[in-house]
Amino acid sequence: MSAVTPTARVEAAYDRIESAGRPEIWIHLRPRGEVLAEAAGIDPALPLAGLVAAVKDNIDVAGLPTTAGAPSYAYLPPADAPAVARLRAAGAVVLGKTNLDQFATGLVGTRSPYGAVRNAWDTTRISGGSSSGSAVAVALGIADIALGTDTAGSGRVPAALNGIVGVKPTKGLVPVTGVVPACHALDCVTVFARDLRLARVTAEIVEGPDPADPLCRTGPRLSLPPARPKVAVPGPQHLEGMADGWREAFDAAAARLASTGTEIVEADITPLLEAAQLLYGGAFVAARYAAVGEHLEKHRDLIGTDLDPTVASIVLAGREKTAADWAGDTARLAALGAAGRAALDGCAALLTPTTAWHPTLDEVAADPVGANARMGRFTNFANLLDYASLAVPAGFVDGLPFGVMFTGPAFSDRALAALAERLANPGLDLFVVGAHLTGQPLNAQLVQAGGTLVGPARTAGGYRLYALATEPPKPGLVRAPEGGPGRGTGADGGAGSGIEGEIWRLPASGFGTFTTAVPAPMTIGTVELADGRQVSGFLVEPYAVEGAPDITRFGGWRAYQESV
Amino acid sequence: MSAVTPTARVEAAYDRIESAGRPEIWIHLRPRGEVLAEAAGIDPALPLAGLVAAVKDNIDVAGLPTTAGAPSYAYLPPADAPAVARLRAAGAVVLGKTNLDQFATGLVGTRSPYGAVRNAWDTTRISGGSSSGSAVAVALGIADIALGTDTAGSGRVPAALNGIVGVKPTKGLVPVTGVVPACHALDCVTVFARDLRLARVTAEIVEGPDPADPLCRTGPRLSLPPARPKVAVPGPQHLEGMADGWREAFDAAAARLASTGTEIVEADITPLLEAAQLLYGGAFVAARYAAVGEHLEKHRDLIGTDLDPTVASIVLAGREKTAADWAGDTARLAALGAAGRAALDGCAALLTPTTAWHPTLDEVAADPVGANARMGRFTNFANLLDYASLAVPAGFVDGLPFGVMFTGPAFSDRALAALAERLANPGLDLFVVGAHLTGQPLNAQLVQAGGTLVGPARTAGGYRLYALATEPPKPGLVRAPEGGPGRGTGADGGAGSGIEGEIWRLPASGFGTFTTAVPAPMTIGTVELADGRQVSGFLVEPYAVEGAPDITRFGGWRAYQESV
Repeated sequence: MSAVTPTARVEAAYDRIESAGRPEIWIHLRPRGEVLAEAAGIDPALPLAGLVAAVKDNIDVAGLPTTAGAPSYAYLPPADAPAVARLRAAGAVVLGKTNLDQFATGLVGTRSPYGAVRNAWDTTRISGGSSSGSAVAVALGIADIALGTDTAGSGRVPAALNGIVGVKPTKGLVPVTGVVPACHALDCVTVFARDLRLARVTAEIVEGPDPADPLCRTGPRLSLPPARPKVAVPGPQHLEGMADGWREAFDAAAARLASTGTEIVEADITPLLEAAQLLYGGAFVAARYAAVGEHLEKHRDLIGTDLDPTVASIVLAGREKTAADWAGDTARLAALGAAGRAALDGCAALLTPTTAWHPTLDEVAADPVGANARMGRFTNFANLLDYASLAVPAGFVDGLPFGVMFTGPAFSDRALAALAERLANPGLDLFVVGAHLTGQPLNAQLVQAGGTLVGPARTAGGYRLYALATEPPKPGLVRAPEGGPGRGTGADGGAGSGIEGEIWRLPASGFGTFTTAVPAPMTIGTVELADGRQVSGFLVEPYAVEGAPDITRFGGWRAYQESV
Repeated sequence: MSAVTPTARVEAAYDRIESAGRPEIWIHLRPRGEVLAEAAGIDPALPLAGLVAAVKDNIDVAGLPTTAGAPSYAYLPPADAPAVARLRAAGAVVLGKTNLDQFATGLVGTRSPYGAVRNAWDTTRISGGSSSGSAVAVALGIADIALGTDTAGSGRVPAALNGIVGVKPTKGLVPVTGVVPACHALDCVTVFARDLRLARVTAEIVEGPDPADPLCRTGPRLSLPPARPKVAVPGPQHLEGMADGWREAFDAAAARLASTGTEIVEADITPLLEAAQLLYGGAFVAARYAAVGEHLEKHRDLIGTDLDPTVASIVLAGREKTAADWAGDTARLAALGAAGRAALDGCAALLTPTTAWHPTLDEVAADPVGANARMGRFTNFANLLDYASLAVPAGFVDGLPFGVMFTGPAFSDRALAALAERLANPGLDLFVVGAHLTGQPLNAQLVQAGGTLVGPARTAGGYRLYALATEPPKPGLVRAPEGGPGRGTGADGGAGSGIEGEIWRLPASGFGTFTTAVPAPMTIGTVELADGRQVSGFLVEPYAVEGAPDITRFGGWRAYQESV
């Protein structure tokens, strides 16, 4: 992936670790020399060759203890978790194991005897969690990629708060073998990266069945959204109570997505938000007790030192839930899931803020459970209801990262990435002057390609327009030769004042498809606009204008048509 | 479906009810006059026009109370359950509501204050349950079709014990709206009929999503098995301890299926049988407490009269299970499910006996829980592990019906029916004399069509064989004209002793496909064999034999080929 050698990358990572002054990121950091030696042996042809990785400390890395954030829980795993083994097989080097909310129970990043992880952008604020160290290691440029886990939002909330990408794959795509369970049936291994493409490549590398994980699934990948996909956003009632400026930032992200030809519709996501409540508010929290309750019972004396008191109280409360409660919650969840699907019917995804606020370390310390609960509003339901989800940066509010999240049905992972790509890169502009103008016969081609009208525009002077003998009738736009008649002069019947047209914005893929379908003699080239901008636009091959009537004096195709 | 009028069918049904002397079948039987009036208004063009239906009394029928087998639980439902409404809309008339193991908790048919339902074939034996009344009503020819439910095997065990077909569709295909829950997430509405085709038609009619049932699913129907499908049977260790003669009856069924070109492979189904134990032996029984526990708690004084003591003890024990137990069992179930899928990898279905024995009423009374537990060996795991299942008759043992069951992945319902059809109708015989003989160039076509060699055979006298000018070379078999040369005379070089060939047995669908692919001048007609049987076989159009060498004297294609 890079001309920089693996060893140089590792050296740089350790240098950054030293300069960053964030020791709380790591629970176990491998010695520089050991990692350098490993890096020296990497085949540079591998897809992740020499990329530097961090692994959340609830995921096994052979040779390093797994603590899940509790020293008393530590064990030495016999092997890499499959996700780690696949990263390494693809050429990545693992720097070490990262801090987390203990037993992956929290969205704050403060619930750890190894210390609260401070935000990459503001050390007075939380990193978010539970994959706190992994997210901050990536955000600070120490690691290129990192593995996290996500049950309630642990792979997405810290991505949002640190301005990076967090991929929460469809449940079962990445094995959870070698991962300390939180809610076993809901746990996902996630991927962090600064760049969407690297995040997706890495996710695809760690995905794939593992015979040791019975919850692994394969399924037909849902195709990329249509050229004009529909994306739901929560109704305004669901966006209240967020941090100052976040509502505006979200609306701006939705508007940017709309500018790419995506239809934005409001959805009543009440069923999803109610389902979210079941993750901690109902019987399912007993899954956490099933996972680590015995350890907590046995080491009650360590609560407050080795064992985080907030985590302990949450997990131990799971003991009190009955199986009949669980059965009832399951039925309720099914009903809410169906209602949620109905609310999002026809939509490729739901776009939401990733989290609802970004508290300071002090705010979380003052109200550990309440502050945490506010963070999971938009993330808690995804695994319960079998959604894939992708958290991506969407600008800044008051100098701190703001993130949004695309959430879609199981196996829609690639489709979500395509939507996020649209948001990151809202589209390519195309200047049209004839049959593709609004109301003209070929305009629908632009709409089908995902195009949206940016607005009217006019060429610079010096273009000539010809009426071609095509079917349907089209004009041919030709730039007059330098110094030739009409070039920038305003003479010759108005050519100097430019030719009227429109700018349409197409997603990159739609632009490509559209271009390959443009028939001769039309071409797509660069057109200079009256305001000096250069944009892509329709031109024409010279042979086609020979003998064609020059209609430049009309100033545009519409005016010409009205005249005939 | 029939020339008999709906009213005549209803009259006959009530006459049979009177003559059958099985009052325990019914919890609520509608008055004859009311049903007759309804039948008179039925559009005879409807697919189930005038067919007489019985409905298990845990499924709502508007106008009749739903008791679930407990008088104290009775309520008057506001509407038909969708399954019932769809039956009626298709022209069926509902006679009434049938007896069941209370709260659908049992496989015996004896756990009901409305009385134990006696077997259709032997009144000293159990009907099986919990859909006891529905199965016996169909088996006795009172109802054409009946609805049951199936969580642990309630729609299959009574089908087997009464010699009828029981369809347990893929979970979520038939809405459970208006059905009293047993284990809500596992419950299925099932269909009984005496005939496989009617059972399947009825199942397809009651299937389909319902907005009120969040567990409804649609999915791609798995296609019919390939011409030579692989079907698993349990290893011998899993077939021990069945009723006398059942092992032999099962082996015979498997052999019959093998004769249709189905490959039978042994599978270690230990993971499935272990999963089965989780239905009652683990935390999932708490779902029954969640469903009706409150009613039992409130009416403890009625246990022993209105409320069945065995059912009450099972359901009330569910109260003691913790949510952490449930989480643990969920993880264990997932592991067993994955192991079970691996054991059946590559198989279209698993063929098993439907149940393991057929106790008398006295045997069940002596050991209500133990006798019941033995019955669910092969049925208990299906809904837990999301299998579709189909119980079909497979002969008799000691004068009582013996049944087998095809179990396959979710959405394999139609494929299972195709396999059951093969078992019921092992195939169609085809006599071949030339290029399709074993070892000849086109023999593979028969194998691909699912064919198996029955054995060599010989035509009656009077057939002539010609060497055709086809590619590959084929012989043409032509029956000599009545009284013409060679017809039944033994004269003319051996024609009288017949032409050598082979009989191949093909599944009906394979036969059809094969036939449509036979090129001119070959035809498929009827051939008389030396033993007097008439079988389908290859013949040839007359034009093709004009001028072709008569090779009758060789007695067969192989002998002719050896000579040239």
